[in-house]
Amino acid sequence: MADWLTSLKTKTPQEGFELAITLARKGVGYTQPSENIRKKLRPKYARNPDSLTMASQVIATHFQTVAAANNYWR
Amino acid sequence: MADWLTSLKTKTPQEGFELAITLARKGVGYTQPSENIRKKLRPKYARNPDSLTMASQVIATHFQTVAAANNYWR
Amino acid sequence: MADWLTSLKTKTPQEGFELAITLARKGVGYTQPSENIRKKLRPKYARNPDSLTMASQVIATHFQTVAAANNYWR
Amino acid sequence: MADWLTSLKTKTPQEGFELAITLARKGVGYTQPSENIRKKLRPKYARNPDSLTMASQVIATHFQTVAAANNYWR
Amino acid sequence: MADWLTSLKTKTPQEGFELAITLARKGVGYTQPSENIRKKLRPKYARNPDSLTMASQVIATHFQTVAAANNYWR
Amino acid sequence: MADWLTSLKTKTPQEGFELAITLARKGVGYTQPSENIRKKLRPKYARNPDSLTMASQVIATHFQTVAAANNYWR
Repeated sequence: MADWLTSLKTKTPQEGFELAITLARKGVGYTQPSENIRKKLRPKYARNPDSLTMASQVIATHFQTVAAANNYWR
Repeated sequence: MADWLTSLKTKTPQEGFELAITLARKGVGYTQPSENIRKKLRPKYARNPDSLTMASQVIATHFQTVAAANNYWR
Repeated sequence: MADWLTSLKTKTPQEGFELAITLARKGVGYTQPSENIRKKLRPKYARNPDSLTMASQVIATHFQTVAAANNYWR
Repeated sequence: MADWLTSLKTKTPQEGFELAITLARKGVGYTQPSENIRKKLRPKYARNPDSLTMASQVIATHFQTVAAANNYWR
Repeated sequence: MADWLTSLKTKTPQEGFELAITLARKGVGYTQPSENIRKKLRPKYARNPDSLTMASQVIATHFQTVAAANNYWR
Repeated sequence: MADWLTSLKTKTPQEGFELAITLARKGVGYTQPSENIRKKLRPKYARNPDSLTMASQVIATHFQTVAAANNYWR
């Protein structure tokens, strides 16, 4: 796989949040590498509130990591 | 997306808790960007106790991050 | 909402645990603000072992935060 | 409720693990205070592997807190 | 219960990972002490991918604790 | 089991992420050691969005550990 993660540093907390989203998606992407299949799964999943909450949980976990890496942008 | 997160600092723990809620919702919002669809999902979800507990779990995870960023408002 | 969280400091670990419970409930309360609906959900939920375990998980997550904020009451 | 948690310090990691179990159960106990109901739920729950794994997850989360409080018994 | 956890220190990360597995299983064992029942549950559980992922999640949580206790074997 | 984890150090965050994936899979592998059974479970699991999110959650948890072990590659 090409380089997609060279640093956890971001300029702002918002960019850090967006990096957390990328990390959450990459966790899915490594497990299901077919973009075609992932696209087919999206409609169902994006209309299920519990699925959305679970996705938000993964983002929250990665955001902890990214925030710590950036010393909370203090 | 417009700037919505410029700092993790808050004046009080309660504002920190409310920021954690914002972060939890943003995690959903990035995954399902249609406000219209999100609104339709809310009634079902907000009456399902396990869905509410899962949402509370995401908030708890973000509150850890926000609290650490604020050195626990000590 | 009125002030309900002005500090994470507690005198004892037990009070810290009880604060963690409050935080877990507030996470639900912000998502479902109707006390009436929350009350209706309680009987079903409080007799479902997995629901109880999930609630205990949220409490555990908040207790990590409160315990750290109190330097573990050392 | 009577005092049940006056310190997070334990002599050994194993006692710390057992304290984590107590904390996990207390999280359930505060949510469903009826011991009678909790007892009725146990047989079903204790034979469901996912329920057991979820309980183990709560214990793991509390053990993180207790271990940190004891500086990992180093 | 006999002594089974006297230290969180391990010589290698791999032994630390294996200790995390032990901790995850002990969390189940304290909740369902009958080895006989646990054995009966295993076949079903070990063929359910979500059950396996949940077990892996508990291990991951304990591995955080064990790794911190060992200062990440640096 | 042969040595598969001798260090948590990685050269880049991306390698750290890939190590987190390995750790998540090993957690499954220790619980279901039959590669044959694990392979049979994969097709179903890799097309279920919630299963993929749960897998991503385990990876996120391990990535916290690996990132801390590497001092966030700062």
